[in-house]
Parts: sequence; structure tokens; C-alpha cells
Amino acid sequence: MKSVLIIGQSNMAGRGFKEEVEPIVNDRLFVLRNGRWWKMYVPVNPDRVTAGICLAESFAELYSKERDTAVGIIPCADGGTCIDQWEIGGVLFDHACYMAELAARSSEIVGILWHQGESDCTPERCAAYEEKLSVIIDGFRARLNLPDVPFIVGGLGDFLVNRSEAFAEHYEKINEALMNISAKKERVGFVSAKGLGANPDNLHFSAKALREFGVRYYEKFIKLENRDKKSRVAPEEQLAITELEKL
Amino acid sequence: MKSVLIIGQSNMAGRGFKEEVEPIVNDRLFVLRNGRWWKMYVPVNPDRVTAGICLAESFAELYSKERDTAVGIIPCADGGTCIDQWEIGGVLFDHACYMAELAARSSEIVGILWHQGESDCTPERCAAYEEKLSVIIDGFRARLNLPDVPFIVGGLGDFLVNRSEAFAEHYEKINEALMNISAKKERVGFVSAKGLGANPDNLHFSAKALREFGVRYYEKFIKLENRDKKSRVAPEEQLAITELEKL
Repeated sequence: MKSVLIIGQSNMAGRGFKEEVEPIVNDRLFVLRNGRWWKMYVPVNPDRVTAGICLAESFAELYSKERDTAVGIIPCADGGTCIDQWEIGGVLFDHACYMAELAARSSEIVGILWHQGESDCTPERCAAYEEKLSVIIDGFRARLNLPDVPFIVGGLGDFLVNRSEAFAEHYEKINEALMNISAKKERVGFVSAKGLGANPDNLHFSAKALREFGVRYYEKFIKLENRDKKSRVAPEEQLAITELEKL
Repeated sequence: MKSVLIIGQSNMAGRGFKEEVEPIVNDRLFVLRNGRWWKMYVPVNPDRVTAGICLAESFAELYSKERDTAVGIIPCADGGTCIDQWEIGGVLFDHACYMAELAARSSEIVGILWHQGESDCTPERCAAYEEKLSVIIDGFRARLNLPDVPFIVGGLGDFLVNRSEAFAEHYEKINEALMNISAKKERVGFVSAKGLGANPDNLHFSAKALREFGVRYYEKFIKLENRDKKSRVAPEEQLAITELEKL
């Protein structure tokens, strides 16, 4: 079984209304519960009483069908959390690593999906965001011993302009930081949230939007995987290169 | 904040119907989510789509009111699991320890609540149950560095006789094993399920029964705590005893 770790704040945990979309029916999709796999159900990421549809559902559905494989979701997103709460060695970081380590006993972790940043829409936090997230990405890859794992980051929704002045002024700066990280770091991919709609709160992506967002995450994910495959050097070639370098 | 770890199978996770009881409203009750505390809501232990009311709710409510303290629940019960799946070093054991370790960063773990055994109602499993659970209790106390922590075990419901022949023949043997462990081990308390009712499935305690069961767990818990206090030897007396023993 393949698995993906999902981390970040409420828009990764998912606040989509169940009634708004068709349920995904696929016996090969699973969620981690107490370190074990259970057939996927909503909410996938039960961090709050308001947890609902999340983007990992359509991501996993597409992955499972296109690759003909079972897919497990490791749900570790936590609503309302800012980037500082995800620091290496903090509770959220350690929790996600524990869960990933348990999941790795019975699956191969193929990707990490991140969506977070709404809680960092202030002038000081925006400015520090790129550097902080970059350190966290390195931290997860090192701790989980997955140095090449694709790490997909999603943009904040344009609907935030309608929510408050603080969001309107800063959400694009978070998106720029996410794009910069994607441009600078190996196998980090940015997924745009352009055109995606919100719940009436203008804070959370709607269930329909999350279905589409999951598809966009998947499309970015396979590009990173494929880039990896194209550029990967076969072991015997690598050996030849290493030998050449000695000359 | 005080906290309790809840482990076992579905009747600890809780399958009570929400509509059957009054909700507990108490701002000082919390559940662990992603290693952090969040205000208690149902389901406390979201192991399955069927998770509902659980006995830890009324336990925590009583504890909070009688001791005038905030109480957190660490939910690690997992439906359908047999005693072998709780072995030391297994996924469920390690998961529960990870969660308890995260909880211990921001609370004092004062008790462990166990309810499990339905999945062991076969002749072979019954016979080995007492020894296996005893080892698991020692394992949790050692791993969490809580050698004296009260460990409360609850009996299986009498309604199981209506469920199947296997249950009817064996559930009392599990209850005997639980009582034996309680009699032999320090600070392990047995709580009877006598008279408690079930959902129509004759497998899961009803929500009303779980409210009462939680009260019974609490009453046993404070007895163990009090016994501890009464019998505890002050450090200077302990030193005197140790010195005497050397003579």
C-alpha cells in the first residue's frame, strides 16, 4: 500500500460540507486510525467537531485508480495552527512523525501534502514564512528518512479577500512564499487555488472546491514523481560516475 | 491538567447513540487531538464512523467536578481488537504510548482505563487472557514510567449471552480473568458491568449504560487512589524500614 501524510491547518484537515458532494466509494482507500488502516470515511482528519470533506479524498481516489493501488491517508492536520506551531520537535511535528512511522510499518509513504498559512497572515509572520516552512520541510524529510519525498504545498484561496483586511493584505504574500519554496527546493510543488470557492465563512474551501484541489495536488504530485524518474540515474551508471569522479 | 489514557476495543471507544443521553457541558474537559488538547466533543475516540458516546465522558465529568480540575482524555481505543493486538511493541501499544507521551508534555496522567475482551471469547483465548493482559499492564506502566498508575478494567456486559453462543459460553471467563488480575496486581481495579444495558446489537453498551459505567470506573479509580494515599509510607519511614531490613 502507498500512503500520504497530510499536515497543515483547517483547509488541509477539511471543512467541506458532506452534503455538497457525492461520496467517494472505493474499497482501496484507507485512513490511519490508532496506527492501523481503516476503510476511508468522512471525516478523514477528525481534528475538530467541524471536520468534513478534505482534499486528500479526491487525491487518493485519483492515485488509486491511475496507479491501480491501495492508498492510505495519514491525517495529522490541525485547525487554526500557525507555522511556529509546526516547528521541529513541537507537538504537531512529533505527532505527525509518530503517525508516519506507524504507517510506514505497513505502507510506503510516497508524498506529503501541506496546506497552511491562513494563521500567518500578518506582516511579521508573512516575512518569516518562507524560511520557516523550508526548515520544516527539511525536518520532516530528515526525521522520516525520506530525503526525496515529494512535498506538495497549496495556495491560499482568493476568497480570503472577503474575510478580513488582514487576509486581504497578506494572503498573496504567503502564496509568493509558497511559490518561492517550490522554485528553490527539490521536489516541492506549488498548487494554485485560483478559482476555488469557499464555504459561506470565506475562510474554508467548499467541499466542491476541495474535490478539485485534490485533483490539482495529484497532478502536481505526478509531475514531481515523473521528474524524479526521468532524472534518476540507474545504480550501475551511478557507480560508473563515481568511479569517473575519482580519476 | 490531569489526564487519563483510554485503551481497549469498541466498548471503550464508545458506540453509544448521542441522541440517547444529555450532552455533558463542561469547559474543563478536553480530548487529545494531534497531541494537543481540544474541548471535549463526541466522538471522543474517533476510531470508526460508528464512534459515539463513551464511558470516559462521565468519568472525566465526575473527576473534574469532584477534584475541581481540568481533565483531558487520551483516546486510543480501537474497535474489534483482540488482546494479542495490544502486545508490547505492537502498533496499538506503541500508538497509545506515543499519544500518552505527547499528552504528558502538558498534563499529568493519573489513570489508565481499559475495556476489552469481547474479541477473546473463544476457549483458547479465554485461557490465556489473564496472563496476557497482566503483561500488557506491566508494559504500559514501564514504558510510560508510571509504575503506580491506577489501571481500571471493566467487565463484559451480561447482554452478550443474547448475542451468540461463543459469547454466552465465554464472557464470564473473561470477567473472571479481569477479577483475578485486579485481585493479584497492585492498583488494578475491576469494575462490574452488572445490570448495564446494550444497543439493539447486544454487543455494545448503550449510551445510558456508558454514562453509568463511567461513574463506576470513577468510583473504583478513587478507591485505588485513596488506598495508595493511606498505605503510602513516607520517605523517612521508608528509609528507616530499609535500614532495619539490613540488620
